[in-house]
Amino acid sequence: IISDGSAVLGLGNIGALGALPVMEGKAVLFKKFAGIDAVPIVLDTQDADEIVKIVKAISPAFGGINLEDISAPRCFEIEERLKRELKIPVMHDDQHGTAIILLAGLINALKVARKKIGRVKIAISGAGAAGTATAKILNLAGAKHILVSDSKGILNPSRKNLTPEKRKLARLTNPENKKGTLADAMVGADVFIGLSAPGIVSESMVKKMAKKAIVFTLANPIPEIMPDDAKRAGAYVVATGRSDFPNQLNNSQAFPGVFRGALDNGVRQITDKMKIRAAHAIAGMIKKPTSKRIAPDMFDKNLVKIVANAIRE
Amino acid sequence: IISDGSAVLGLGNIGALGALPVMEGKAVLFKKFAGIDAVPIVLDTQDADEIVKIVKAISPAFGGINLEDISAPRCFEIEERLKRELKIPVMHDDQHGTAIILLAGLINALKVARKKIGRVKIAISGAGAAGTATAKILNLAGAKHILVSDSKGILNPSRKNLTPEKRKLARLTNPENKKGTLADAMVGADVFIGLSAPGIVSESMVKKMAKKAIVFTLANPIPEIMPDDAKRAGAYVVATGRSDFPNQLNNSQAFPGVFRGALDNGVRQITDKMKIRAAHAIAGMIKKPTSKRIAPDMFDKNLVKIVANAIRE
Repeated sequence: IISDGSAVLGLGNIGALGALPVMEGKAVLFKKFAGIDAVPIVLDTQDADEIVKIVKAISPAFGGINLEDISAPRCFEIEERLKRELKIPVMHDDQHGTAIILLAGLINALKVARKKIGRVKIAISGAGAAGTATAKILNLAGAKHILVSDSKGILNPSRKNLTPEKRKLARLTNPENKKGTLADAMVGADVFIGLSAPGIVSESMVKKMAKKAIVFTLANPIPEIMPDDAKRAGAYVVATGRSDFPNQLNNSQAFPGVFRGALDNGVRQITDKMKIRAAHAIAGMIKKPTSKRIAPDMFDKNLVKIVANAIRE
Repeated sequence: IISDGSAVLGLGNIGALGALPVMEGKAVLFKKFAGIDAVPIVLDTQDADEIVKIVKAISPAFGGINLEDISAPRCFEIEERLKRELKIPVMHDDQHGTAIILLAGLINALKVARKKIGRVKIAISGAGAAGTATAKILNLAGAKHILVSDSKGILNPSRKNLTPEKRKLARLTNPENKKGTLADAMVGADVFIGLSAPGIVSESMVKKMAKKAIVFTLANPIPEIMPDDAKRAGAYVVATGRSDFPNQLNNSQAFPGVFRGALDNGVRQITDKMKIRAAHAIAGMIKKPTSKRIAPDMFDKNLVKIVANAIRE
């Protein structure tokens, strides 16, 4: 588990020592859920080149590298370079652990709402690590109408001052080249996925969504809109990242099994296909999804085994 | 536990992956003897600058750094720089773990032979990590007549092509500016300390030593001279690094307690004074040393506690 402490939970850039307790907690989850002895390592540098060099240098003793809480856009470059240059699995959990469990949850939420992934309109709030990876996996899984917004509004290719990563994302999504705010993106949307900041979605924004709206409000610990407010505004299925509301969607449901599977099967690279298989496997654990139950509990004894089985060459 | 695999046991420069099992074993010793959770980390680089940079960068998650099996002279620079730049204890065990236990053994061997450290002539074979640190600690402990030899003979300041470290060592030792081979250095010596290579000392070389000669023949697994041969040639006290002969002197008797003490007492730097105190504490565990018993067994239950108590600010 490697972090540079640049994007820790809701705390932001708190540095190496600040990030350490979170990485230690993560190591406990690895051990508890998947029997994996993980070593929390926090880096006293936030330079992408140096991080790549350091992780490569210390890699021989490890079976896999779990990157954690590294801010965008550096996290994309760091992960890509390490995947290319190392022969052990590397995964930035903030991106892909999140993306896997969100796709799993969405598969079941769409069943509940009787909608098809290829036809729904999806508004994602947040173009950081998690938002970017989620937009990509949803696209690969067949979603065709995705709008991603950051704090300045909907990403579209003609917007100025976009980072190269956001420009790519704007091209991958937004086929109609829409402009406007997050509120504009949510008008008529079937699905809202919040991976951004507390309290930025109002009841009136949810009210303007399509019928049987699906609201994943995942900013942690305080969501974009509180679940009760979303329900009151008409949302049909609501999920959060928290354990004290129904429908928790949390990367803890994904990463232990992903690494267990990678280690057990000698997988050298965790591919998009594996991630999508893992999402379908998680979704399949709920035989009859309802609006209050779209994903397995993170303590479900079968979860790690089922995800691990999906991670194979 | 950090190694670059450049000087592993008797195996030499076998690289990161080659060194990994040794570091894993070391981690087991840390846990078993001192209850310390140590993480074996092997580096895919042997560049001193990079090693310093990497260890500094990953240091925030660790309470101390045990450097291991790094070849001389890089090991001196790496350790010095890290000690200067980090606020947690850093120790290259090949140097100081070895030096501590050898001083402990010598204190008792000298008691057995009724000789004084300030008056004995000491011939050290080996000017690498262990030989250098041992010569230094013996000097600090009062030894005044030390000759250190490497494969090319006795170190003296006028010898050509010495590394800066060997030149400093030649000045610290060898007050009479002697030249010659290891065999020359051993003529009339009271103490031989071998930290070099298998089989390089003959019976006739031991025969030419002073009466009641002390022979520490520590190359591992095959010593400079086998203990039976040294005895036959007249050695009075013989010690090796091996567990299958009497008088084992092994850094495993020192490092677990050193780090236990450093961690328990919030020690930020392991000083020479602490090392000398640790050596005296280890020696003091043997109330009545004999030629067959100059040091405690490495499984002695009190060993770690006694060494740890010696490591205090």
